[in-house]
Amino acid sequence: MPGTRLDLARIQAARRVIDPVFLETPLYRCEALEPALGCAVSIKLETANPVRSFKARGTEVIASRPGSPAVVCASAGNLGQALAWSGRRRGLGVTVVASRYATTAKLERIRALGARLELVDGDHELARERAAAIARRDGIRLVEDSLDLETCEGAATIGLELVDAGPSFDAVLIALGGGALATGVGHVLRARAPSTEVICVQPQGAPAMTRSWHERRVVTTGPTNTIADGVAGRCPIPEVLDDLLVVADDAVLVGEASIIAGVRLLFDHAGLVVEPSAALGVAAILEDPRRFAGRHVVTIVCGGNVDPAAHRGWTHPA
Amino acid sequence: MPGTRLDLARIQAARRVIDPVFLETPLYRCEALEPALGCAVSIKLETANPVRSFKARGTEVIASRPGSPAVVCASAGNLGQALAWSGRRRGLGVTVVASRYATTAKLERIRALGARLELVDGDHELARERAAAIARRDGIRLVEDSLDLETCEGAATIGLELVDAGPSFDAVLIALGGGALATGVGHVLRARAPSTEVICVQPQGAPAMTRSWHERRVVTTGPTNTIADGVAGRCPIPEVLDDLLVVADDAVLVGEASIIAGVRLLFDHAGLVVEPSAALGVAAILEDPRRFAGRHVVTIVCGGNVDPAAHRGWTHPA
Repeated sequence: MPGTRLDLARIQAARRVIDPVFLETPLYRCEALEPALGCAVSIKLETANPVRSFKARGTEVIASRPGSPAVVCASAGNLGQALAWSGRRRGLGVTVVASRYATTAKLERIRALGARLELVDGDHELARERAAAIARRDGIRLVEDSLDLETCEGAATIGLELVDAGPSFDAVLIALGGGALATGVGHVLRARAPSTEVICVQPQGAPAMTRSWHERRVVTTGPTNTIADGVAGRCPIPEVLDDLLVVADDAVLVGEASIIAGVRLLFDHAGLVVEPSAALGVAAILEDPRRFAGRHVVTIVCGGNVDPAAHRGWTHPA
Repeated sequence: MPGTRLDLARIQAARRVIDPVFLETPLYRCEALEPALGCAVSIKLETANPVRSFKARGTEVIASRPGSPAVVCASAGNLGQALAWSGRRRGLGVTVVASRYATTAKLERIRALGARLELVDGDHELARERAAAIARRDGIRLVEDSLDLETCEGAATIGLELVDAGPSFDAVLIALGGGALATGVGHVLRARAPSTEVICVQPQGAPAMTRSWHERRVVTTGPTNTIADGVAGRCPIPEVLDDLLVVADDAVLVGEASIIAGVRLLFDHAGLVVEPSAALGVAAILEDPRRFAGRHVVTIVCGGNVDPAAHRGWTHPA
C-alpha cells in the first residue's frame, strides 16, 4: 500500500513511553446495545482515565521526548487537558488556547491541572492561529493536533490494542476531527488487520475533512454547527488528509439527532457517559443499519468530557 | 495474622482462569472528585465489561472448574447476570432466582443472556431459600455468593490488581453486602499491603453484616430499606463473618442521602454511571470527611447496573 507518515515501529515505541494508566483500555462486547443497532457491537473505552479521553496517549509521547521546556496548543478541550496532565507530570510548561465557547467542564479541568488557559472570541480555527502566534512570540513549541506525528502515534496505540485483542472486527468506527485518531488507528489496521473496514464518522455540521476525503483535496468550510465540539474543525491539514486517503475505507456524515440518540443509547444501555464526538460511531450505525447488519463492529468511545447539564438534556429531553 | 478461608496461591490461580475481559480494570486517580471529597481519590472501575459488575470474576472461576452441568443461584441481579454470562460461554445451565422487586435492568440482562429466571414474591433471603430448594430438587449445584470460595477468590483478584499497581493507598473503601468482595480484597491487602486500611461500607438500611462485625457474632435484621439493592441482605453467613473479622479494619454505615449524593458526584465529576452499591465508598467519605482528609483513598466502583430512569432521578432531582 502507499505509505503514510506513520510507522509501526514508532507506534510501538510510543506505547512504551505512555503512562500505563492510559493503555490497555477496556475492550468488550456490549450486547445490551445490540437490539437497538442490529449488529454485534464492541466498545473500546477511552474515558476511564485521569483526563477522560484518548488524547493523553499522544501528549504522553510529546512530553516524554526532550525538547522545548514549554509548549502551546489550540484545543477544543481534550488535547489541552491531556497536554496539561502530561506536562505537569514532566515539568513542561503548558499553555492552552481555546474558544470561549468550549465546553465548560473541559476548560475547568485544564485550569485545575495547572495549565495557562487563554480564551479567544471565536472558533477552533481562531484558537489555532492564536496558539501559533504565541509559539512564535515566546519561542516555544507549537503542538498541532493531527499534524504533529506524536499525536497520531499516540492515538495509533489504540489500533495496536485492537489488533492484539485477537478476534478480528468487520469494521471499526472512528470519530473524525483533525484526523489523528483516524489516521493513527487506520494505519495500524491497514498494516495488521487489512480486512477490517476503517470507517470515519463526522457530523454533518462539521464536514470539512469528510468532504476533503471524498474530493481527494482539501475542502474548507464555513462555521461549524454541531454539538460534537471535539471534532468541529473547518480547515483540514493537507498532510493529514494525504494519510487519511491511504488508510480510510469510507468517511460518512451523521446528523445531530443521531448523535444525540447515540449519546442516549450509550447511557441507557451501556451505562456510559460520553461526549457527542464519542457517539459518532453509534450514530453511523443508527443512520445506516443495513450496512452493518450481522457484522461485528467496534466503536472507539473516544471521550467523556461533557457538561452534566447538557448530557442530562440529551438523555432526558424535557 | 489469624487465617481466613482464603489463600493467595488460590487467588492467583483464579486470576489465570478468568476471561481477561474482566481483569486489569481501570485504576486511576480522579482529581475532579477531590474538591468535593477533601482527599486524594482513586477509582477502581468494575463497570466497563460485558456484565457491568465485578461479579464475573467469581463466576468465571466457578464455570471454569469441572462439576455440575447446571447451577442455580439467588441474586439481586449482578451475580445472576455474571453467572449467566460465564455459564453460556462454557455450556453450563444456569438458573437464577431473584426477587420480583429486583432492578429491572438486571433481570432483563439475565434473561437476555439465556439463563432461566425465577422470581420470588419476597426479598433476597427468600430467593436464597428458593434457590436452595431448586438445587436439592434438581440435584444441581447451589452457588452461594460469599460462602462459596470461588466468589471470594474471584473478587480477591481485584486486590491483586490494587497491590500490583505500585503506589500504596492509605485506605480502600469496599461495598459490604454478603462479604465476598470485602473478604476477598481484604485478604489480599492484609497479606500484601498491611498498612492500607480496609474499610467496609454498608447502608444504614441494610446493616446486618456491619452490626455483626461490630458485635463479633451474626446479627440478623428485619426487612432492608435501601436503594443499594446489591448489598441488601439480612442474614450474614457465619463463615464469611469470621473472615471479615480477620481482614477488615472497620465497617461503617451510611445514609441514603449520602448514597444518592455519591451517585450524583460520580456522574457529575467523574462521568460514571454507577449503581447505588458502587457509590457507598464515596458516601462514606462524604459522611466523615475528617477521617480521610489528606489521605489517598481508593474506592472500588463495583457495579453499574441501574435503571436509567432511577439514575436520572438521583442525579437530576425534579
